[in-house]
Amino acid sequence: MVETWATLGVDLHLEPTGPGVRRGLTDALREAVRTGRLAPGTRLPSSRALALDLGVARNTVADAYADLVAEGWLTARQGSGTRVATTAPAAPFAQAPPAGPAHPARTQPRPRHDLRPGTPDLGSFPRAAWLRAARRAVTTAPNQALGYGDPRGLPELRAALAGYLARARGVRTDPDHVLICAGFAHGLRILAEVLRRRGATTVAVDSYGLDVHWNLLARAGLRTRPLPFDAQGTVTAGLGDAGAVLLTPSHQFPLGVPLGPDRRATVIDWARRTGGLVLEDDYDGEFRYDRQPVGALQGLAPDQVVYLGTASKSLAPGLRLAWLALPRSLAREAAEAKGATETCGVLDQLTLAEFLTSGAYDRHVRASRLRYRRRRDALVAALAAHAPHLRATGIAAGLHAVLPLPPGAEPTVVQAAAWQGLALYGLARFRHELAAVTAPDDALVVGYGTPPDHGWPAALDALCRVLP
Amino acid sequence: MVETWATLGVDLHLEPTGPGVRRGLTDALREAVRTGRLAPGTRLPSSRALALDLGVARNTVADAYADLVAEGWLTARQGSGTRVATTAPAAPFAQAPPAGPAHPARTQPRPRHDLRPGTPDLGSFPRAAWLRAARRAVTTAPNQALGYGDPRGLPELRAALAGYLARARGVRTDPDHVLICAGFAHGLRILAEVLRRRGATTVAVDSYGLDVHWNLLARAGLRTRPLPFDAQGTVTAGLGDAGAVLLTPSHQFPLGVPLGPDRRATVIDWARRTGGLVLEDDYDGEFRYDRQPVGALQGLAPDQVVYLGTASKSLAPGLRLAWLALPRSLAREAAEAKGATETCGVLDQLTLAEFLTSGAYDRHVRASRLRYRRRRDALVAALAAHAPHLRATGIAAGLHAVLPLPPGAEPTVVQAAAWQGLALYGLARFRHELAAVTAPDDALVVGYGTPPDHGWPAALDALCRVLP
Repeated sequence: MVETWATLGVDLHLEPTGPGVRRGLTDALREAVRTGRLAPGTRLPSSRALALDLGVARNTVADAYADLVAEGWLTARQGSGTRVATTAPAAPFAQAPPAGPAHPARTQPRPRHDLRPGTPDLGSFPRAAWLRAARRAVTTAPNQALGYGDPRGLPELRAALAGYLARARGVRTDPDHVLICAGFAHGLRILAEVLRRRGATTVAVDSYGLDVHWNLLARAGLRTRPLPFDAQGTVTAGLGDAGAVLLTPSHQFPLGVPLGPDRRATVIDWARRTGGLVLEDDYDGEFRYDRQPVGALQGLAPDQVVYLGTASKSLAPGLRLAWLALPRSLAREAAEAKGATETCGVLDQLTLAEFLTSGAYDRHVRASRLRYRRRRDALVAALAAHAPHLRATGIAAGLHAVLPLPPGAEPTVVQAAAWQGLALYGLARFRHELAAVTAPDDALVVGYGTPPDHGWPAALDALCRVLP
Repeated sequence: MVETWATLGVDLHLEPTGPGVRRGLTDALREAVRTGRLAPGTRLPSSRALALDLGVARNTVADAYADLVAEGWLTARQGSGTRVATTAPAAPFAQAPPAGPAHPARTQPRPRHDLRPGTPDLGSFPRAAWLRAARRAVTTAPNQALGYGDPRGLPELRAALAGYLARARGVRTDPDHVLICAGFAHGLRILAEVLRRRGATTVAVDSYGLDVHWNLLARAGLRTRPLPFDAQGTVTAGLGDAGAVLLTPSHQFPLGVPLGPDRRATVIDWARRTGGLVLEDDYDGEFRYDRQPVGALQGLAPDQVVYLGTASKSLAPGLRLAWLALPRSLAREAAEAKGATETCGVLDQLTLAEFLTSGAYDRHVRASRLRYRRRRDALVAALAAHAPHLRATGIAAGLHAVLPLPPGAEPTVVQAAAWQGLALYGLARFRHELAAVTAPDDALVVGYGTPPDHGWPAALDALCRVLP
């Protein structure tokens, strides 16, 4: 048995507070199992003992243990405590957070069924259409386009995006205020740098969201302060002296509520009054099923809102292409923070520009929307048949649903799913440590975008089998 | 008040039925508000009147109004009807004075002839071969390759590069110690971050080099300290307590001297003794004309040297692909400094891997080497004919030559060239301001890689005309 943290022999640098603690602990324990420092079958100290040892909250340790049980690295059994799984590291899931793995995900065994949110159906990437666009783009590009180029991104792509975003998302911008980034996180890092240079210390965030984003802001020297929420979404009053607020207005991630009209007005009023920035993460704005998409908040106040969009959900994360639509006052600072040379590959940029202007992007989004809506409908139908007492929420849009569970059921269900090779996240893992409000229910966050088409029915069956 | 649709003056193509009607109407109204055709406070026609006017269902109009109220463009109040929100900005964004391009490089008129070093002949980028490789790579890649992927870079590319670098440059590495970056500067930024975390404060550099690299290191909090040099290249004795030294051992940039054998031994000995790092910038190692390429320094001491290579000279800067071969002790730190999500696009990575393993890369490098050698020979011949008193140096390799001038002639020649539309750099612009040693001669740095094939003879003529 491992008596204390020290005996794990893990070199761990824990921040005393903040969302990074749990993540850091989880990573360190996983690494210890992976490298064999913690042998299969080893009994871990109780969460109380380890928490004392580390000087962190007991819940943090309990959560880290729960995460690793869910991923299959540890096992927990009544009377026998928490142990290193005897199957580890042969069977554990990839521990990738939704927005992108911190560690080499591709070398780890994958779960049989993956319903973790964050990745679209990679099997539906339009390879043939993309290659056709690439051929046209690469064949016709002027030589000069292959050089170092404009660090803000190719003018062709910025123009195509400005047009597309106006048309599809109600974004008001022009090519001079669009900045191409290597994925959402890159865009957020650029904005964090701009905020820090402006003297900001705090970014208000949703109470539930992605710890990779909070950690990224923390690494840039910015505190995150979670905002309360209710059925109308995040409460945007009381932003006070925050330098910025990061929101998912079209479809709160992961709770699924759109930001109500008065909440929109309040946050824009705050931004106008204080000079604070609104960062609009429009991660899945294109996927709304039952009515018109909710237009981007940015369209209301282009001088207060930075719009962040990405090809990671609509095409594939591997493209590493995202875009910011920036307030006029910020365009130059953001381009400087991005740096002169770290642009994205021009061939993909040329291809995406061609994909947008030829209409291929719209066609692909329409086809994807239909495919994902069918999955959403199948999920709702399966629940009605197999678990009529459970009712999915947040399903009007996006690639995931929230599935409220009976009180206390969340960890059990996540663990039972893991044992059956079904990767799932509980809602608790998306909660900011400092959140003052907790979601009313235990719940699962079911990402229905991830499985390939042929694997979706089996994944849905597996889900229904583990529901209480 | 707007009485009828016609008075909106909106060019609207409505499908008679289907979801497109509401969408089209919503977009058209939003656009009318945005462009100021519908001024703040304007009262809109009743949904009944507008529906009649347009020949659509009343609910369609009511839904469109509701969408725009939800987005904040319109307001609806009992007794006062639906109006354009007063908070909606009156001045359309597109008419605002442009903030001015943050990086005007691409919009500036290009010189008639460009002999500045740093960019290869973009016209020789192998578009057809690249597209063939892209087709094979994108068609055969597993779905999983399109996901967030390994932040160190795709395993396929790291494996292909480890093989290529061993074969072509004598680099000793394996795929686990290769890190893919978005260009050389990105790699250098990652290394600067690693050095800073290790407590380094100073990086020794060549006395002549690129200020963009020195500035990048300075922004990362590292001082640069120029090393003296002589005809055998940079003097690597006396590195003292520098945390690292950045060198171009195969072909000093811009002076063109390879680092002599004793200087190599000295720097590696220093690294072994002190734990300092050698950063080997192998920017043009593939282009050596008169004898075998000088093998990479890294091959002598893989645990002390970080090898930095790039596709910017061998293919095109626009690809934004470079690679580090890292000492074992540094691989994890460097991957962490790179961050989890800022990888390069996977399609270009897959394509480059295919390009390398299929032999297309070798063929392209061979063809380029031949082309550049012919240019180099033409430059030497033209000098012999037109300016026999001048003798180019540093011409055994690379894409540039150093052309010593009579004392004091450098600024005059650079200025005379500029007047004739010929872009050239003098050697002085590459000098580190703290350099203790100054190059013995005034000189031009002539980049003969940049012009397209058809423009090269005219560029050479222009050069000969401005020489003293």
